[in-house]
Amino acid sequence: MYELTMLQAAIKDGTAHRQCAFEVFARRLPNERRYGVVAGTARVLRAIKDFHFTPAQLETLDFLDEDTIDYLRDYRFSGQVDGYREGEIFFPNSPLLTVRGTFGECVILETVILSILNSDSAVASAASRMVTAADGRTIIEMGSRRAHEYAAVTAARAAYLAGFNATSNLEASHRYGIPASGTAAHAWTLLHIDEEGKPDEEAAFRAQIADAGVDTTLLVDTFDITKGVETAIKVAGPRLGAVRIDSGDLGAVTRRVRKQLDDLGAHNTRIIVSSDLDEFAIAGLRGDPVDGYGVGTSVVTGSGAPTAGMVYKVVEVDAHPVAKRSSSKKSIGGAKRAVRTHRSTGVALEEIVYPFNSAQPEIPAHLGVRELTRPFMRDGQLVEDIPTLEESREHLETVRRTLPWEGLALSRGEVAIPTRLVGF
Amino acid sequence: MYELTMLQAAIKDGTAHRQCAFEVFARRLPNERRYGVVAGTARVLRAIKDFHFTPAQLETLDFLDEDTIDYLRDYRFSGQVDGYREGEIFFPNSPLLTVRGTFGECVILETVILSILNSDSAVASAASRMVTAADGRTIIEMGSRRAHEYAAVTAARAAYLAGFNATSNLEASHRYGIPASGTAAHAWTLLHIDEEGKPDEEAAFRAQIADAGVDTTLLVDTFDITKGVETAIKVAGPRLGAVRIDSGDLGAVTRRVRKQLDDLGAHNTRIIVSSDLDEFAIAGLRGDPVDGYGVGTSVVTGSGAPTAGMVYKVVEVDAHPVAKRSSSKKSIGGAKRAVRTHRSTGVALEEIVYPFNSAQPEIPAHLGVRELTRPFMRDGQLVEDIPTLEESREHLETVRRTLPWEGLALSRGEVAIPTRLVGF
Repeated sequence: MYELTMLQAAIKDGTAHRQCAFEVFARRLPNERRYGVVAGTARVLRAIKDFHFTPAQLETLDFLDEDTIDYLRDYRFSGQVDGYREGEIFFPNSPLLTVRGTFGECVILETVILSILNSDSAVASAASRMVTAADGRTIIEMGSRRAHEYAAVTAARAAYLAGFNATSNLEASHRYGIPASGTAAHAWTLLHIDEEGKPDEEAAFRAQIADAGVDTTLLVDTFDITKGVETAIKVAGPRLGAVRIDSGDLGAVTRRVRKQLDDLGAHNTRIIVSSDLDEFAIAGLRGDPVDGYGVGTSVVTGSGAPTAGMVYKVVEVDAHPVAKRSSSKKSIGGAKRAVRTHRSTGVALEEIVYPFNSAQPEIPAHLGVRELTRPFMRDGQLVEDIPTLEESREHLETVRRTLPWEGLALSRGEVAIPTRLVGF
Repeated sequence: MYELTMLQAAIKDGTAHRQCAFEVFARRLPNERRYGVVAGTARVLRAIKDFHFTPAQLETLDFLDEDTIDYLRDYRFSGQVDGYREGEIFFPNSPLLTVRGTFGECVILETVILSILNSDSAVASAASRMVTAADGRTIIEMGSRRAHEYAAVTAARAAYLAGFNATSNLEASHRYGIPASGTAAHAWTLLHIDEEGKPDEEAAFRAQIADAGVDTTLLVDTFDITKGVETAIKVAGPRLGAVRIDSGDLGAVTRRVRKQLDDLGAHNTRIIVSSDLDEFAIAGLRGDPVDGYGVGTSVVTGSGAPTAGMVYKVVEVDAHPVAKRSSSKKSIGGAKRAVRTHRSTGVALEEIVYPFNSAQPEIPAHLGVRELTRPFMRDGQLVEDIPTLEESREHLETVRRTLPWEGLALSRGEVAIPTRLVGF
């Protein structure tokens, strides 16, 4: 609502057409994490391009005067957008997105831009830590039921961007081309009772194998895990694809199950674990015979940080830098861009933020330098080469490898590399 | 995905038509809270009623056989749904929703039911604590930018259900009839610079008053709060509606601002505060001259518990109770219903859960008793009297008053009243 009341007041007092720059940034990283992951950029750019008001929506805005309604009826964003690409790593005060245009056309985009970036980046930032913790083993997103019905779809996308291998969410799989994964819940086993109403795990396993083949994953912990594994191999034979364990002390249980499988000759049957896993639990299982992780709640809720805490602030009005001076929420005026420097080994050294229209600061010749700020929109039109989800996923994987080793630590601590402001 | 692979395997092995009961419940409350709030029920019931697969969706399901596709093409839920009404208070193991029908028609509803209930109940459960902490003062939801763009809309609904007075989200206001609220951000003040590019707070306030009248809320902390308040009253006069403060030590600042306003004769100008408020910060300001709270991040993210942790489990197959015995995730077989007993003073005493088809357990005559389980759907059709959002909001307000006083405490502790299982 305040976007529109501000717009109306600005139309009235003649300031709506002042040229402004708004900036998206995060004041800090949640829970003293070492880095964040930009996600949602492609969705944001599409949302900006499509942003408009339908006649039906305009009719509901009965607190606005006719001039403002007319403005909104014709609204199409016609400005410039620059920023960090999707899949880029970021730090506090990184200028993640810079939106330039008139006050009126920029101010009404705050909520849509931040909603998308904050939710997608929260998931990707958590997911990236889990991918590191999984250390190359398969990791599957299966948290749809713990997120809003639409947020579940974009959470699956953000997790995949961060390096997850698959999702249980079919809408996400279809919409974004993510591999889908899913076999059975405990309900499947419990459905199978004999004529006296007694549990019949074997019947459940037989039916699943008959439908999905021996390469499927059998959920073996509905009753007794040892009995479940025994039944699974009895029914499927030693070529069973995988067993899933969703409860108990996963370290101890997987070691026991691995031995049992090996003793039964099922050396290639994989062990998949789930059950409230987060990055710490995943890392804790690194020494155990786990072949894959199913992760639900923690990834879709950002593992303790369900929003990325990004803000959208005006930083320039008619080419003058502006900034509020509120205590503890100071900001730095002026539109910005950034580069990241690297040692000759490729390891990232620091992020340098400088005025948007200035020349790049001088970087010592022995250092590598990469521009982080890219053009996304010009005069309201998308610049052509917006990266695909796969490209962004590969980009993140590459960039993650450039962080100093302590930057990938899961523990609380300093950010991976410092950010230096030059020219403010 | 697993909903559909289970469906296909069940169609193949002839178990898809077994009569089942699935139950939604929470094993525990997050962060040792005293109670939870059921929210999203009206949205769930609509989603179940509307649940179907379009031809375009069916085409994407290329991992399913023809029988399963045929089943989905004709799918309409035709079973029974009973449960706790929206706005009801709940505890661990409360049977929140019981869905009865064939395995096939029930199993594919898991994700949509849980997504809605988990996200809406997470917000409402946190919001309810904030409403209690606000102790009758105005409390406004303004967290859209910290939630997924669609989740923001339903979060506003859940917060209103829990007793919030208004939302900044216009889509939620329009869709659900919630009062809308919103005036100006710091961008509004920063937009106003003079010809030399210097900040001109007075011009910003003048323009806002000219547009919105003196009853508006001026944001006074962009630069210096004391100067901001002085300018606000200079421009608006002592009949200014409110000032908003979004930074600093809110207790100390509001006391100083109240004195300043009073000294300026603005005795009726209200003080609204915002800035990362949660239920604890709200409670901490109870002794200070705060007239209203604007709450963002913490309410839309469930204040530390972004999902309600509800699960959807099969509890009955062909009239036989079924339950898994996985370690630490045991469940109790059999469909259930519940009543809550009250002392003659009206204070809630305990929740009694008993078999769905049994008679109500005997309750001593001096106790009041209220049925918690209500019929929602019969043969796939909505039972007529689904409460409106306003009715559910009033219901919660009433029920909250029946909790023992320690049940409303914000601190970690025991649940407000115990739950007793009878007949299992």
